[in-house]
Amino acid sequence: MTTESLKPFFEPQSVAVVGASRDPSKGGSIIVGNLKRWDSKFVERVYPINPGADKVLDLKAYPSLKEIPDKVDLVVVLTPARTLPTIMKDAAEKNVKAVIIESAGFAEVGPEGIALQEEVVRIAKSAGIRIIGPNCTGIINANNNLITTFVEVSEITKGGVSVVAQTGMFAGTLIPEFISQNLGISKVACFGNKADVDEVDLIEYYAEDPDTQVIALYLEGIADGRRLIQVAKDVTKKKPIIILKGGRSDAGAKAALSHTASIAGRGEVVEAAFKQIGILQAETLEDLIGFSKALDWLELPNGNRVAIFTASGGGGVLSADQCAQQGLNVVSLSPTTVSKLSEVFPEWMPPANPIDIWPAISVAKHGLNEVHGLVLQSVIDDKSVDCILFILMALKELEQIDIDMIINMQVNNRKPMVVWLFGDPRIISKWRDRFEDHRIPVFLTLSESVRALKALYVYKKFKESIK
Amino acid sequence: MTTESLKPFFEPQSVAVVGASRDPSKGGSIIVGNLKRWDSKFVERVYPINPGADKVLDLKAYPSLKEIPDKVDLVVVLTPARTLPTIMKDAAEKNVKAVIIESAGFAEVGPEGIALQEEVVRIAKSAGIRIIGPNCTGIINANNNLITTFVEVSEITKGGVSVVAQTGMFAGTLIPEFISQNLGISKVACFGNKADVDEVDLIEYYAEDPDTQVIALYLEGIADGRRLIQVAKDVTKKKPIIILKGGRSDAGAKAALSHTASIAGRGEVVEAAFKQIGILQAETLEDLIGFSKALDWLELPNGNRVAIFTASGGGGVLSADQCAQQGLNVVSLSPTTVSKLSEVFPEWMPPANPIDIWPAISVAKHGLNEVHGLVLQSVIDDKSVDCILFILMALKELEQIDIDMIINMQVNNRKPMVVWLFGDPRIISKWRDRFEDHRIPVFLTLSESVRALKALYVYKKFKESIK
Repeated sequence: MTTESLKPFFEPQSVAVVGASRDPSKGGSIIVGNLKRWDSKFVERVYPINPGADKVLDLKAYPSLKEIPDKVDLVVVLTPARTLPTIMKDAAEKNVKAVIIESAGFAEVGPEGIALQEEVVRIAKSAGIRIIGPNCTGIINANNNLITTFVEVSEITKGGVSVVAQTGMFAGTLIPEFISQNLGISKVACFGNKADVDEVDLIEYYAEDPDTQVIALYLEGIADGRRLIQVAKDVTKKKPIIILKGGRSDAGAKAALSHTASIAGRGEVVEAAFKQIGILQAETLEDLIGFSKALDWLELPNGNRVAIFTASGGGGVLSADQCAQQGLNVVSLSPTTVSKLSEVFPEWMPPANPIDIWPAISVAKHGLNEVHGLVLQSVIDDKSVDCILFILMALKELEQIDIDMIINMQVNNRKPMVVWLFGDPRIISKWRDRFEDHRIPVFLTLSESVRALKALYVYKKFKESIK
Repeated sequence: MTTESLKPFFEPQSVAVVGASRDPSKGGSIIVGNLKRWDSKFVERVYPINPGADKVLDLKAYPSLKEIPDKVDLVVVLTPARTLPTIMKDAAEKNVKAVIIESAGFAEVGPEGIALQEEVVRIAKSAGIRIIGPNCTGIINANNNLITTFVEVSEITKGGVSVVAQTGMFAGTLIPEFISQNLGISKVACFGNKADVDEVDLIEYYAEDPDTQVIALYLEGIADGRRLIQVAKDVTKKKPIIILKGGRSDAGAKAALSHTASIAGRGEVVEAAFKQIGILQAETLEDLIGFSKALDWLELPNGNRVAIFTASGGGGVLSADQCAQQGLNVVSLSPTTVSKLSEVFPEWMPPANPIDIWPAISVAKHGLNEVHGLVLQSVIDDKSVDCILFILMALKELEQIDIDMIINMQVNNRKPMVVWLFGDPRIISKWRDRFEDHRIPVFLTLSESVRALKALYVYKKFKESIK
């Protein structure tokens, strides 16, 4: 039911933009520009509304919703707050079922705005219109390239991650970050004040959406914790949900109130409940991105036993510390693995975990790639190892490492592996994309690498607990 | 005394390389290549030692140390461990006073290696030779461009940060990271097994070194905690010391033992003592780099009261959370500041901290740069604000922000400010370098930004406590 009513937001057949502007620097122009990137079969069904213009960005403009000769599935609004009641009435008359209100100046600004927002919701309810917003950037659907946000989004990387966010940056500034980090997006919904459609509705929608594998949330307020938990506890059985919660401190809660009119609260109780139903908690934006990528791309590990592959001794020590801190077990290698590795390790350096391959490389009886291949295959085959942290130094001296060999060994194997890559930016950018093209997550910091592995393990444990 | 004896490592007049190789892929060739980048007045005093070669990389080679016709200040060795006793005897005969042993296969490999290391140290002691290593990458002095490491270092960014590290990557893989993060280096010493010269000697040396403003340590084992604290407690009064400690977990301690023969221990006691004498603790490599940069470039804040400047509401909320979590006070702005900001803020959005300028921008009565300028200047002038977290979205729509104006306001002011920059990588790389050219630290994650501000405050509090 909810799912059906949200469909026009993500899969409309026609879209009108109220507040379409001919000034290219204005949000009302940028929205139209973004909509022109929509799946080509729909582009001619983008309708700019501007009483003073014949055309906006070469599309025929209309003075109001009511003059559009076509059925309108979705309306996007960016006119001043006070104009909304009239627009909603027009939408009702036009039998529109979905409106994204991007304009600010509602509940987040105090009593007058609250009253205005209530009026808008009242009109919508009586006409059976669903609202996303106000005070938001709307939605992105990477699957049909529908983009309603008022900052330019000219590119999206498609993938299995769908985002619910109570702030606009997830449909704006963060998009190039997602692209540069190869995070594949299915859908993004930024709902601002959530006068109507809220995180629970969207979670329900994403739960049913075949293109969504992982659900990532940024929330400032939680309107109805009980309902969220009721819904989410069934969803986490099928798809992972990750949450980054804003407003956890007093200072943050105060900021959330003026940002999206959210009552953030301290939320320890809610957080404990989240944990119990398998929602993964991100502490930072990097976590939210990293966990999403790892959960979208990798199998879950059988347990928490990690093998650390490194050519840097110091990197191995720091990794072991961080794994231990995150509850991962830097396990002893099986006798079989030790004996296989002994073939390439110098006599004076018995193989152990972290597996520091530098001594094996520096002895140079065996080639760089022979050592990499043998060590990685041994670890993949070792039944006492559940997951792999692969530390790779982007160093000119190691540039002849056969990355394709490593990738091939890994894609033929279901043991989750993440790569911590650091060093020369030129080599990093080359290697990173090659790994990630094959869905092997690469992180540029150790802590993100280890935390992503940990998230996989935490979700696996949850799945086991509900069997 | 220590200081005098370490001088030949950093400021030799001549260097011999034992194990100089003609094979460009070998460490023994790369060392010579790096030394050819030395201050041009010394380059002809680089002496490759190779009994089978006339020349190495166009430099005249000698069969042994003893044949060099010149005085030799520093010897760098990368021949197998077992050759070291003979080489040390040659060095003694030649009256060398400083040897960097980069070869591995000593105390880190067990009883035989321990015995060998002890023999080498015995010879050195009786001849008054200081040793850095074994099992290390030696030193970098950015001030005269002296580089002894066995991975190619073709570039260093000069600055005030000097590193002491018990792992080679600080004189190798991390150098391009330092460059891409604009971290300015004065000196790096990677001492491996520290058979002789240890972290305390190096701290003493850096304390006296006029080019060193900040001392950054990566340590796996602490040989003599009491002596470290004795020395460091005087140094931290003048120069900040930051430590990243490896081997804090059992798994990490085990790895440290096989990496650099370090007895890492759990170290809670030592850590508490560090804190007391003002040594700053880094949890990650990113912290070590970020704290160093902030402490090298910025004044210390008067207190912990932070103003958050943001065009992203969500960014403001998350920042307030992280500041609170790190013990920074997201302070109320002074009435004067509020009244100044009200000039550009819409009536429905009273200015508060975090200062979300988006409403002011979107109302568009005032230009982007007018808003940025007025807000930043107000915060700089506000006596209730000790430091500034400047959140900048690298977004096409904001690309016309006058970065030079922001930089100029900031360089004429002594209130510490860090920038969290995220979004479009093309804009990031352009803006980042401009800020950092003027010693305004830029971070690509929020947590690094906030933690760096916190480090400044912690060091300030320490300095006040010892007044």
